[in-house]
Amino acid sequence: MKVFGIDPGSERTGYGCVESDGSRHVLVRCGAITTSALTSFPDKLRTIHAELSALLDECRPDSVAIESVFFATNVRSALKLGHARGVAMLAAVEAHVPVVEYTPAEIKRAVVGYGRAEKHQIQHMVKLLLRLPVPPSPHDAADALAVAICHIHSIRSLALGVGKLRSKAETSWRHVRLGR
Amino acid sequence: MKVFGIDPGSERTGYGCVESDGSRHVLVRCGAITTSALTSFPDKLRTIHAELSALLDECRPDSVAIESVFFATNVRSALKLGHARGVAMLAAVEAHVPVVEYTPAEIKRAVVGYGRAEKHQIQHMVKLLLRLPVPPSPHDAADALAVAICHIHSIRSLALGVGKLRSKAETSWRHVRLGR
Repeated sequence: MKVFGIDPGSERTGYGCVESDGSRHVLVRCGAITTSALTSFPDKLRTIHAELSALLDECRPDSVAIESVFFATNVRSALKLGHARGVAMLAAVEAHVPVVEYTPAEIKRAVVGYGRAEKHQIQHMVKLLLRLPVPPSPHDAADALAVAICHIHSIRSLALGVGKLRSKAETSWRHVRLGR
Repeated sequence: MKVFGIDPGSERTGYGCVESDGSRHVLVRCGAITTSALTSFPDKLRTIHAELSALLDECRPDSVAIESVFFATNVRSALKLGHARGVAMLAAVEAHVPVVEYTPAEIKRAVVGYGRAEKHQIQHMVKLLLRLPVPPSPHDAADALAVAICHIHSIRSLALGVGKLRSKAETSWRHVRLGR
């Protein structure tokens, strides 16, 4: 299976595509879409949408995995993040790829084994799991790879019937939810 | 000039297009894009984006006006609204139409003359200003027409040099801001 992870943000959107047979994960590609501070906000959204659409067309993943967010420092940052997530989700649905969402705690548990893991621990585990010489950089790319790996682990857990990832987060507006 | 107003929301996105010579405003069309509660969230975003893109292609406005939001009941509702606003802005920028934003207080002042006007007062004034037999319905369509009229008034004020709309809201991520 091939999973395309996205860590959206209006300034920098991380992405990471992982191919896996369920136990061995291989990095397809990863990186970050950066937008200039001088660019207008709508143009930033256009860049994120256009670049993600091109990447999805190139990678042709089976699913897109994205972190669900229930916390932001304030309404303003939640709104900005929402805009970026909106155009990222749109790119996925336009590419006819199902979107799955995981909470930050689920991603950390799946990748590090601990729901309150720190960012550097995620980067380190992503490096190990993908057998990379160095941790993926920038950290947005590592976060995107982590959510992709989380989805792969979730599918494997379901297939093996060994349990499921759990979350206390609400799911009323998630359309696909594996691992629950 | 022709202005296309948008009042975004994940369940219902109001729109309203107004043509004006600066003093006489004519309704081009208005309505609301509704999404089914059974539809997945990414599919709702696709519907909003696709329908707005088609409407912008049909109406060919000179600008898109949208309400800027700095308040939401919680982070969750801000995020959801952000997704809808994101794909609405994307539709505008893909149609090569500049996006302008106004705070709710600016819109109320421009349409009703009072920054804390109630929803029914806005509907009533939109009806009067557009010489409609009944107030526009649903209220999302009236809100979208109000922001379009606000932009028309703002341009007229600037052209006449008789003052400018004011707002205390921050503008760091607004790319176009008339009336300041």
